[in-house]
Amino acid sequence: MKTSIATVCLSGTLEEKMQACATAGFDGIEVFEADLVVSPSSPAEIKALADRLGLTLDLYQPFRDFEGVEEAQFQDNLRRLEAKFQLMQELGMDLVLVPSNAGTATVNDDAVVADQLRRAAELAQRYDVRIAYEALAWGRFVNTYWHSWELVEAADHPNLGVCLDSFHILSRDDDPARITDIPADKIFFVQLADAPDLGMDLLPWSRHHRVFPGEGSFDMVGFMAKLTETGYDGPLSLEIFNDVFRETDPVLTAADGLRSLRWIQQGARGRVTEAAAARVELATMPKIDPVETIDHVEISTDSPDECGALLGALGFRFAGQHRRKAPQLFVADGVKVVLSPTQSGGTSIASVAVQVADSAKAFARARALGAPLVSRPVTADEVRLPGVFSPGGTQLFFVDEQAASWPTEFGSDPDKLAQHSATMRLDHLNVPEAWDHFGASVLFTLAMLRMEPLEAQNVASPRGLVHSQVLESPQGGIRWNFNRVPRTYTDRAGQPVRYPGHIALAVDDLEQRAREATSAGLTVLPIPSNYYADLKARFGLDDATVTRWQELGILYDRNADGEFLHLYSETIGGLFFELVQRVGAYNDYGPGNAAVRLAAQQQHEQLTRAFGG
Amino acid sequence: MKTSIATVCLSGTLEEKMQACATAGFDGIEVFEADLVVSPSSPAEIKALADRLGLTLDLYQPFRDFEGVEEAQFQDNLRRLEAKFQLMQELGMDLVLVPSNAGTATVNDDAVVADQLRRAAELAQRYDVRIAYEALAWGRFVNTYWHSWELVEAADHPNLGVCLDSFHILSRDDDPARITDIPADKIFFVQLADAPDLGMDLLPWSRHHRVFPGEGSFDMVGFMAKLTETGYDGPLSLEIFNDVFRETDPVLTAADGLRSLRWIQQGARGRVTEAAAARVELATMPKIDPVETIDHVEISTDSPDECGALLGALGFRFAGQHRRKAPQLFVADGVKVVLSPTQSGGTSIASVAVQVADSAKAFARARALGAPLVSRPVTADEVRLPGVFSPGGTQLFFVDEQAASWPTEFGSDPDKLAQHSATMRLDHLNVPEAWDHFGASVLFTLAMLRMEPLEAQNVASPRGLVHSQVLESPQGGIRWNFNRVPRTYTDRAGQPVRYPGHIALAVDDLEQRAREATSAGLTVLPIPSNYYADLKARFGLDDATVTRWQELGILYDRNADGEFLHLYSETIGGLFFELVQRVGAYNDYGPGNAAVRLAAQQQHEQLTRAFGG
Repeated sequence: MKTSIATVCLSGTLEEKMQACATAGFDGIEVFEADLVVSPSSPAEIKALADRLGLTLDLYQPFRDFEGVEEAQFQDNLRRLEAKFQLMQELGMDLVLVPSNAGTATVNDDAVVADQLRRAAELAQRYDVRIAYEALAWGRFVNTYWHSWELVEAADHPNLGVCLDSFHILSRDDDPARITDIPADKIFFVQLADAPDLGMDLLPWSRHHRVFPGEGSFDMVGFMAKLTETGYDGPLSLEIFNDVFRETDPVLTAADGLRSLRWIQQGARGRVTEAAAARVELATMPKIDPVETIDHVEISTDSPDECGALLGALGFRFAGQHRRKAPQLFVADGVKVVLSPTQSGGTSIASVAVQVADSAKAFARARALGAPLVSRPVTADEVRLPGVFSPGGTQLFFVDEQAASWPTEFGSDPDKLAQHSATMRLDHLNVPEAWDHFGASVLFTLAMLRMEPLEAQNVASPRGLVHSQVLESPQGGIRWNFNRVPRTYTDRAGQPVRYPGHIALAVDDLEQRAREATSAGLTVLPIPSNYYADLKARFGLDDATVTRWQELGILYDRNADGEFLHLYSETIGGLFFELVQRVGAYNDYGPGNAAVRLAAQQQHEQLTRAFGG
Repeated sequence: MKTSIATVCLSGTLEEKMQACATAGFDGIEVFEADLVVSPSSPAEIKALADRLGLTLDLYQPFRDFEGVEEAQFQDNLRRLEAKFQLMQELGMDLVLVPSNAGTATVNDDAVVADQLRRAAELAQRYDVRIAYEALAWGRFVNTYWHSWELVEAADHPNLGVCLDSFHILSRDDDPARITDIPADKIFFVQLADAPDLGMDLLPWSRHHRVFPGEGSFDMVGFMAKLTETGYDGPLSLEIFNDVFRETDPVLTAADGLRSLRWIQQGARGRVTEAAAARVELATMPKIDPVETIDHVEISTDSPDECGALLGALGFRFAGQHRRKAPQLFVADGVKVVLSPTQSGGTSIASVAVQVADSAKAFARARALGAPLVSRPVTADEVRLPGVFSPGGTQLFFVDEQAASWPTEFGSDPDKLAQHSATMRLDHLNVPEAWDHFGASVLFTLAMLRMEPLEAQNVASPRGLVHSQVLESPQGGIRWNFNRVPRTYTDRAGQPVRYPGHIALAVDDLEQRAREATSAGLTVLPIPSNYYADLKARFGLDDATVTRWQELGILYDRNADGEFLHLYSETIGGLFFELVQRVGAYNDYGPGNAAVRLAAQQQHEQLTRAFGG
C-alpha cells in the first residue's frame, strides 16, 4: 500500500521534513497546516519540491471546528474552507481533513451536521477536491468513527468520505470491527498511530504521547487486519504527535515510521485471507520463523587482554584466532564470544549473530525493515555472514546452516563446539540506547526477530531514571533488554559517561561458579552491606546464606515462580558480564537489583578513575 | 516549622543528596529506603554524616504492604518490620512511614486492620520508635486520610499516628477540611507535594510528575492553612517523585524545595488567625505588596553599537553614560533600558529592576527565598540597588523611592524622565530557561514578586516543543514569560544555540510606529507569505490590510476581548525586541504566532550565519 506520513511527526522545517520523508522512502506526506504557515516556501515551491523528491501531497490537515454550528458561523466557516481549497489548488492537492468539531460546536443535530457536510462537499466539488471527515475522540458531539460514517452516509455526496484514525478509535476502547461495514470507496484516508497505556486524558495523550505502530500498546495489527478486510487501498499514513520525535533527527524518525508501516502490513497479512491481502497490495517482507537462538556475540574492545582475562575467569577458553585477522574466539560450553580488538572506543557489544534457517531471507527482511547493510569483506573460502546495522548501531548478523562452519576460520571444529553440556548458556543481553534511538531500536529488533515485549520498567540510577524494555522470543530462547539512558549520563565535567551494556550468562550453581571465577581472577562488583541487610529482612533468610552471598557479591530475588541469584563482573570500558542462576520457573530479572548495580557501578567507576583507570 | 525533604526527590548518591540538603539549609531528611540500600555507607556512617551536616533523620520510608493481610502473612510482615526497627536504631531514627497496603491486602475489615496496626505499634514501643500510617490514594482498602485516621483512632496506641500527604489527598479531590478534626499530636508527619493537572492515573502521576508546592495546580496554600489550624508542629517535609529532579543538580533542586516550603508557610500565614500562625511557628519572610512596575531593564551586550542602533530605531534616545563606567542609559517615553557593554557573551537581559516600597525589605524577602546576593560595588554618592540572582541567572534589583535618583549617575534628571506621555510602555519580558532551572525560576519569581501564573502553553519550534509559562502581577503591571528551551537547541554540529529572549514594548499605533522604526533602520523579522494567506482565511481580512501588515512584518490575532498586532525585530546575539499593540481588552500574546516567529528566527539565523554573522 502507498505509505504516507504527516509532517507534524518530524522535527525541522517543512522543507527538512519533506527531505527526510523522501530519504526514508515514503510515497507521500500529509501537509500539516502549521508547518506550511511557518514556511517561507510558497505553495508552488512546496509542490515543486514534492515533485522533485517524488512525494505525493496526500492530505491537507487539519481544518478544525467546521460543522455543528449556527448558520451564520457556518457561512464564515465555508468562507474559511474555500480559502483552503484555493490554497490546495496551488499545492496541487485534492484531499482535506475535517476533524469533528471539538471547539465551537453548538448544534447537536445529525440532520444539520449532515447537511453542513453535504454543502461543504458541494463546495469541494467545485474545486475538484474531496473532504475526509474524521471523528476526534474528544469531538463535542461526534467522537466515534461510526457516528462520523453515519453523517457521511446521510450527507451522501461523492466528494465526502471518512478518515479513520486508529488513535481516535482505540484510545476510546472502541471496537474497530464495524469499519468493514463502511464501503471502501467511502474511506478517503487512514491514519495510523499507536500509544502506550499511560492512563491519561485523551487530548494530552494524543498530542504528546502517540508513537509509531508497534511501539505502543494498541492492537495495531488487529486494526490493520480489519482495515485490510474493508478493501481500502488508499494511503496508509502515520500521524504521530510525539514530544521526543519533535526533537529527534527527522531522517531517523521517518525511517522508524516507515519500518512500522512495513511491519504492520506484514502482521496484517497473517490475519486475513489471501484474497483480502492481495486485493489491497499489502507490502510484504520475507517471513522468517521467530528467532530463538543467538549464535555468537562479538565484543569490540580496545582492551583485548583485560577482556580475554575476564572471559577466562568466567570459564571461557580461547578457541583460536582468526586465520588472517585479529579477532579471537572464546568458547564456554555452548556460548561463543568473538573478541575484536580495536584501537580505541572502549569495550562494547559490536554485533550479535543469530541463527536463522535462511540467512539470505533474514537479511532481505532486515533490509525491508530499512536496516543498512554492514559490509565486512571476506576473502576466498571464508564464510560471509550477511549483516545489518540496527538503529542504535549494534550490528545484527544472520547465521544459517551453510554458514555454521565459520569457527573453522578460527581453527575450531564447529562440530566439536556443538557438543557441549550446556552448563553455561546465554541468558540475556542488555544494551544501552540513546534517548533518540531507543524506540527505533526496540521496534526494529522486535519486528526483525519476531520478539515480544514485556512490560517496560523504570530503574532509578543516581543520574536519573533508566527506561528499560525487555524483548523476549516466543520460546524464551532470546532475551534482550534495551535501556534508554538519561541524557544526564555525564561526569561532573559534563562529559558523556558510557552507560555499560552487559552479557548475562546462565549457570546451574552460581555459588560454585562464583567461587571458581573469583579464584580465577574475576573481580566481582561489590554490593553494599545495606542491600544484604534489606534482603535478609525482606525474605527472612538465614545469616549464613546471606553472609556467603555477600562475600561472593551475589544478589537475590524470589517470587511465586522461583528464585534468582546473580552477580556482576567489573566493567571494562562499557561492558560487563552477569552470571545468573534461575531456580524453578523464575522468569524475571531481579527487579530492584539493577538500581543497586547502577549505584555500585557509579561508585566503582569513581574509584577506578581515582586510580587512573 | 522544621523543614525536611525525602532523599528520593534528589539525584545522586545518598551521601550527595544529604550534602545537598544541608547546603540548601534543610533541617532534616526522610531516608528513602532504596537510597540507603544502594549506599556503601553503613547505617552508623549515615547517622554520623547527618550529625556532622546538622541534619536530623526524620522519617524512614516506606514500609509497604503491611496491614490488611491474613495472620500468617501478618506474622511475616511483623518480622520484616522488626528488622527495620533494628535498622532504625542503628540510624538513630524513631519514625517509620507505613503507607496503606496497595499490593497484598486481602482483608477488608477495619477491626482486623486496626488490630494489626495496634500490634505493630506495640512492637514499635519496644524499640522506642513510632509509626506514621498514611493512606495512599491508590491503597487497596484504605485510600483516604479520614479512613487512615479512623483506623489509627481505633488502634489507639501512643506509638501510632497518621502521616498526611497533600498529594494523596488533593489528587483525589478529597477535601482537606477535616484534618483539623484530627488531634495535632496524632499527626506524626506531614508530606507536601503539588502536581500539575495532567489528567493521569494516580500512580504514574504520583511517581513521575509531582512538583514542589507552588509549581503545580493544587491549592497548596489552602492545604497548608488547614494544616496550620490543626496545630501540627512537626516537620514540614517534601516528598516529590519527579523525573526531571532525578536528573538535576541536587543542590539546585533542594534549594528550590526549601524555597517552596518558605513560600507556602508565608502564604498560609495570610489565611489563618495570628494565634494559629504563632502556635506552630510558621516561617516568615518580609511581606511586600505585589510588585507591579519594572523600573528598568539592563541588557548586557558584546555588541553595544548594534544594540544602541536598534534601540534608536525603536524610538529610544540616548540619555547618558554612567559617570565612571561603561553602561549607557536609553530612554523611550516611560521605558528605561541600561546597556552594559561586555567583552563577550552575546546580548541578553542581564537584570530586571523592579519598583518596591522598601528595597531593603524586598531584598530580605529574596534572601529568605534562597536567592544569592548580587554584589555590584558602588562608589561614594552612588545609589546602591540591592539585588539577587534568580535561579535561572537573571539578576533582580529592587528600586525604592530613595534609589529613584539613580539616573543622575547617567547625567539624567529622574524627575524629567518621570514626565512622559506613556506612548511606549513595557508590555512583557520573555526569557529562556534551561530545562533544569525552569521550575525553580518560575517559582522564585512568582513567590518573590507575588505574581500569578497563567495556564502553561507549548509552542512548537523546529527543534522541539518550548514549554511556556506566563506570570502576571495582579494588576497586570508586569507580565513575564518563562520558556523552557528544548535540550536540542543546538546547531547541526551539536553546539548549543542560544534561544533568544526578548523585551516587548507596547505602543498605541503599531503600523505608524513600524513605519517610523523601519525608516530609522529597524530590521523587522520577515514573516512568511503563507502566514498572511492563513491570516486572511482565518479572520476574513481584506487584502489591503493584510498586504500592509505583510510589508511591515506585523502579526495579528483577534479574540472575543479585542485585537493584537505585533512585530519582532531582528535578533542581536540572543535578544530581540517586540512591538505590540493591544486593542480593546485583548490580554493574550497571539497564540500560534510564537511558532511562526521561532521558525522565522531559525531561518534568519541560518542566513546570518551564511553571511558570517
